[in-house]
Formats: sequence, structure tokens, C-alpha cells
Amino acid sequence: MDMPARPYVFSQRAQQLTSSTIREILKVTERPEIISFAGGLPSPQGFPIARMRAAFDHVLDTAGAAALQYGPTEGYAPLRAWVAEDMRRHGAQVEPDEVLIVSGSQQALDMLGKLFIDPGSRVLVEAPSYLGALQSFSLCGPEFAAVPTDEGGLIPEAIDESLAAGARFVYVLPNFQNPTGLTLDLPRRVALVQRCAQLGLPVIEDDPYGELRYVGEALPSLLGLGRAAGATVIRLGSFSKVLAPGLRLGYVVAPREIIAKLVQIKQATDLHTATLTQMAVYETVRSGFLDEHLPRVRELYRRQCGYMLEAMRAHFPDTARWTQPEGGMFIWVTLASGVDAGRLLQQAVARNVAFVPGAPFFAGVAPWANTLRLSFVTVPEPSIRAGIAVLGDLIRHADAA
Amino acid sequence: MDMPARPYVFSQRAQQLTSSTIREILKVTERPEIISFAGGLPSPQGFPIARMRAAFDHVLDTAGAAALQYGPTEGYAPLRAWVAEDMRRHGAQVEPDEVLIVSGSQQALDMLGKLFIDPGSRVLVEAPSYLGALQSFSLCGPEFAAVPTDEGGLIPEAIDESLAAGARFVYVLPNFQNPTGLTLDLPRRVALVQRCAQLGLPVIEDDPYGELRYVGEALPSLLGLGRAAGATVIRLGSFSKVLAPGLRLGYVVAPREIIAKLVQIKQATDLHTATLTQMAVYETVRSGFLDEHLPRVRELYRRQCGYMLEAMRAHFPDTARWTQPEGGMFIWVTLASGVDAGRLLQQAVARNVAFVPGAPFFAGVAPWANTLRLSFVTVPEPSIRAGIAVLGDLIRHADAA
Repeated sequence: MDMPARPYVFSQRAQQLTSSTIREILKVTERPEIISFAGGLPSPQGFPIARMRAAFDHVLDTAGAAALQYGPTEGYAPLRAWVAEDMRRHGAQVEPDEVLIVSGSQQALDMLGKLFIDPGSRVLVEAPSYLGALQSFSLCGPEFAAVPTDEGGLIPEAIDESLAAGARFVYVLPNFQNPTGLTLDLPRRVALVQRCAQLGLPVIEDDPYGELRYVGEALPSLLGLGRAAGATVIRLGSFSKVLAPGLRLGYVVAPREIIAKLVQIKQATDLHTATLTQMAVYETVRSGFLDEHLPRVRELYRRQCGYMLEAMRAHFPDTARWTQPEGGMFIWVTLASGVDAGRLLQQAVARNVAFVPGAPFFAGVAPWANTLRLSFVTVPEPSIRAGIAVLGDLIRHADAA
Repeated sequence: MDMPARPYVFSQRAQQLTSSTIREILKVTERPEIISFAGGLPSPQGFPIARMRAAFDHVLDTAGAAALQYGPTEGYAPLRAWVAEDMRRHGAQVEPDEVLIVSGSQQALDMLGKLFIDPGSRVLVEAPSYLGALQSFSLCGPEFAAVPTDEGGLIPEAIDESLAAGARFVYVLPNFQNPTGLTLDLPRRVALVQRCAQLGLPVIEDDPYGELRYVGEALPSLLGLGRAAGATVIRLGSFSKVLAPGLRLGYVVAPREIIAKLVQIKQATDLHTATLTQMAVYETVRSGFLDEHLPRVRELYRRQCGYMLEAMRAHFPDTARWTQPEGGMFIWVTLASGVDAGRLLQQAVARNVAFVPGAPFFAGVAPWANTLRLSFVTVPEPSIRAGIAVLGDLIRHADAA
């Protein structure tokens, strides 16, 4: 037998994988002298460490053997019931068996790709949309089609029979979207779910940031509106932004038939999400803890957002426009047409400032090269001012070039 | 716009998913009066609860913010280094950057399917093999081909150019295999990796049970032998059986090029494995804890295995043959040809005893309907005797029918 030329053959989808632009940038930003607006990290000041330590202790003291044993794929029953109750408090009638616990909502995206996407299936995404979802869906080989957006976010009327033809779902982040920070207003939400009900188009509502609203009133979820309108809505939630992301804990709310298929998929994907983590998070949130905890987190994020917006008003030229988030972690900047945010990043890194260019967030449409995403959450106020001043200076020079 | 006939379309692979036989059986076995030899649960008597509680406390006390924050996709660096060192102690030269931490080794199977399998790709598996791997690979649409086995397990000589043609990998459980309990002896291990090196066929070595050897001496891993022979070996390890399965923590050891691709895939799959869990497990194992802990677990399993073998010798007819495990959790029974283990299960459940029929463990070959798997780990000794007596009685009647 001869030695083969190549020792192994990767699948086509694995061969097509490329390293994430954001990952590469984040490697640079690990240098301590860098002021980074690139990250998507929640503020560790918002982590309830002592409370969680007490919860882990309580669970290991009172139910250690169960917490360390294999558990049901669907998730820890009391946590599923808590999520259903939380949905009901927010206006959507949900039963515990319509809830599946997952290892962070990124895992839900992976599983939903497996559930819905055949190679070449059309998938509708906002332009721009969450990069992690685009990467996850990409592993299933879809054909992305972009839903047009304006300064109010996704335009429901743009989803017509032609765009929706053969589409497996539309993926939407309605609150403080990643990357734009935009929130879909109530008329658009209603129009979206009505249209999707008529078209028979499932809606995936990804809402990791919804509880981080620091301006204005909460709007009804697509889940609640969609159930009233007869639309199929699959809602993804996460404990990453309300407690801590390092736990890797999230959930899916969906009709029972979809949950049943997702359970089969999750069984083959990772059996189930860590029992101990589920029990400790349930212990943490069960007595209304989030009602006292979240206002502190919101106030922290509101203050950080304000620092950045103030600095942008002071330092950015009139040629730049940017969003005014009502919550969440991100501001989206649109520069003069012709300015390349990728090139701007190289110049910024040379002056020890980092951000994420907007281009990777687009799929199914030509990327807008003159856009970028800024995160304000983990940077101290003086560094926000200093970093934004550098960016303002670079943008002025780019405009003049 | 008319309402569509169906509200959503599942992918072809999702449509083909069927509920796991074992899952359905396990639902029955939750009834308290059932003596279940069906489960694959480790014994909770082996869980080091107090030690783990101290580890979680230590991590949250000394590094809480880091433990609750997003972490690198590759895994917690000290844990990767610990795994590499553990591999070296077991005779395989491994560097920390050849290690990827995953959310249980089931996740590694999912990711390896994504990495290697295109629809229709040939995949070689033992006959029989681990059901969870077959389910996970199935989501990628492979063509399974069975490697013939005998009472010594997989037959290396059966992997010839014809069987290996176009195959993406061979999946092997060398120690106390699930479901057979068989261990591949040293000559077969050497022959396997030499043959795979010649054929350019990657080997996936899945070894969740290797540390649970209670008879005889440990054998070299396929990883160590394979590296010496020039074979590509991807080794999967798990903390499920040496610490606790509810943590969902495992690892992959592979060449750097493969680790790099798996990191991209894991990024899209669930970002990373829970930081807190990785840090607490590292804290648990770092000072040689397993050297004192594992002998206790092995002794427990050895005793349980002995109870079952003794009862089988007393109660099973001569027409039945079974394996003599040197470790792990399972005994594999082969009944007289013509006896259907699925039918036997129905009769057994009617008498409050459960096990898993062998048929679902076969892929790429006609299943052997006269086989079954027994787990002895979590059942108390008197129940083992009572349950095996019932099975012996049913087998005698089946033989006579």
C-alpha cells in the first residue's frame, strides 16, 4: 500500500470555514495598551459573584449527586418552568414544555441550522446581522437573502412573496440589535409577525439584550405578538447578559413539535446542558433576584453608553452618523460613503484603538464598507474619551483623503 | 396571500431523525419498581461532591469575574496544559496547543462529523458501536460501513483498501467498549494504527472509560501508538466518568491543523465551554487528586461487575455467551441465534426488569437481534441478583420457544 498524498479529507463546509475577522481583531486587542471598542463582553461589574457562589454551594450541599449526574436533554424542569413564567410576565403565554435549555443561545443557532437548513435553502437575515448567527448557519450551506433595513431597522414590507419564496425562516434581533443597536418599533413588530403568519415563514427572535433597556419602555416580544397573529416564532433567550456569559446558559421557546425535534438534535449534539449550572442558575434567579439585580446592570450600561455618545458628539465630524441605542451594548457608525472602515481599523490599531468594521455583518447583500460597530460596555470613561478622540481624528483625515 | 399548507419545512436530516430506542426505554425505567440494567449512568457514589464544592468556592472567591466571563474557544489554558501532561504520563507526547476543551465528548463527535463528513461520505464504525456517535454522525448524512469484529473486538486486518476507499475516518472505542465491554489487545492496536497510517485513514479514538480499568494492566493508547506509526489519531477524553458527567466536560487531542479547524467549528457551535466549569475542574484535578480518587471508583465498579457476572453464571443458560469486562460499565450478551432481544425486553419490562437490546448499536451491517447490553454500575447487589434471575428465566423460555 502506498502512502496517500493527503492524510485526511475535510468536509466541504469545513474547508470553506475562514477565521472570524472579529476573532483576529480580538487577538490584537488583548495587548494591554489597546483601547478596545471591539469586544462584545458584558461588564464583569454586573456579575453577581457572591450570589452565584452561594447558589453553587446550596446546590452541591443539598442535591450534589443529582447536580453532578447526567440530566434530561430538555433541561432542568424547575428552570424550564421559571423561563415559562418569565415569558408569561412579559406577555407571552408559554408552558414549561415549550422551553428547551441550551448551552448558550449560540448553541440554539447551531441546532436551528440543523433543524431547518438544507444545502442551498434560503435564509432571511437582517442587513447587517449578528456575525455568530451567520457563521453558525453557514455550516449548513444556506443561501442567505438580506432583508432591507433603514434607520428603524428591518423593513417588514420588504418581506414579500418573492423574497420569502422557499425561505426556511427569517432571523431577527428586535432589541438593541447586534451590530446596529437599533430596536424594532411596535408597528414594525406587528407588521412583521402578521406578514410572516401570512407567508408561513417562521421567525427566529434572538433577544439576548432585551433586559438591558435603559431608555424608554419595553416593547412586546415577537413571540407574544406572533402567537396572537398565528405566526410560528422561535424565541432565543440567554442568561449571558443578565447574569454572566461564562456560564454558557440560554434557552429556546418554541411550539412543542419544534421543541421535540430540537431535543433529538440536542441529544446528538451534546446530550444535555450541564446539570449543576442549570440548578445553580435556577437557585440564583428563583426568588426574583433579577428584579433587584438588573436595574444596577442597566444603570451601569446607560452610563457607559452616555459617555461614548457624548464623546462622539464632541469628536466625530458631521459626515459620520450613528445610532442612539435604547439598551444593549453597541453603537453603529456610518461614515461618509467611500470611507473604508477596514482601512480605518488598521490606522486605529496603529494608534492603539480597536473596533469592528461593519462588513463581516452582512450576508446576502454587498457589505457596507463604510460602517463600524463600537462597544462601550467594558471601557473606563477616560479611555472612551481618548479612544473616540483618536477615531474622530482618523475619520476627519479619511474624509479629507 | 393564502395561508400555506404547512407552517414550516424541516431539513431532510431533521426529518430523518427518529427518537432513540434507548431514550424511550429509559423513560420506562424511571418507574421506581423497575430494576434497570439499561442506563449508562456512572455511580453517584463516585462523585467527589465535597472536593468539587471546595473547587467552585475557590474559583469564585479568587477569580470570580474571569470565571463568569466569556473565555477562549480553545479552552482554559491551565486545563489544556493539564490534559497534555496527563497524556504524557500515559505515554503520548502531547503539547497544550494540541488540546481543545469541549462540552462533553458527545460534542466532540458532533464537531468531528461537521469536520469530516460530507453527505454520502463513508465512515467506518465497529459492529456494534456507541449509539450516541452513530446518532451524531448521522446528522451529517454519512454512509456507514461496519468493521467486522470478533470476541477480541475490531479486526484490524478487515480494514483493507476496499473498505477504506473514500472513508473519512474509522471510529474506535479501544477500552471496555460501549456496548460490548471489550478491550482491544496490544497486537490489534499496533496493527490498527499501522494499517491506518498506510491507508491514510484518520482514527478517532474515543476513550471515556479508560481510567476505569479494574482488571489487568493499562494498554497504550491509539494516540501514542499512532503517533509513533505515523497515523493521524484524534483522541476524545472525558471527565464524565472520572469526576462527574453532569459537568459536561471533555477534550479532544489532535494535530494542530485539526484543532485549528475544530476551534472554528466550536466557535460557531457554542462559542466555548463554560469557563467556571473548566476552572473548577482544573482546581479539582490539579494536585493529583485523581490518583487518590480513581482507585476508589475502580474498586466500586469492579465489585458491581463481579456481582453481575456471578449472578449471570448462576442464572443464565449455557446458550447465552457474554463478555468479561476488564473495566468500564457494560457486559454484552449474545443469546442463541433466533432469540429476539427486543421481544425479550418487552417480557422483561412486564416483570420490572430493563436492559438495552443490541440492534440499535449496529450501523452499516444487519443488526444482531440476539444481543443485548447490561449495565451493572448503579444497581444495588440484591437487585442485580433478582433482575438477572428474571432475565435468566426469560432466556430459558425463549430458547425453548
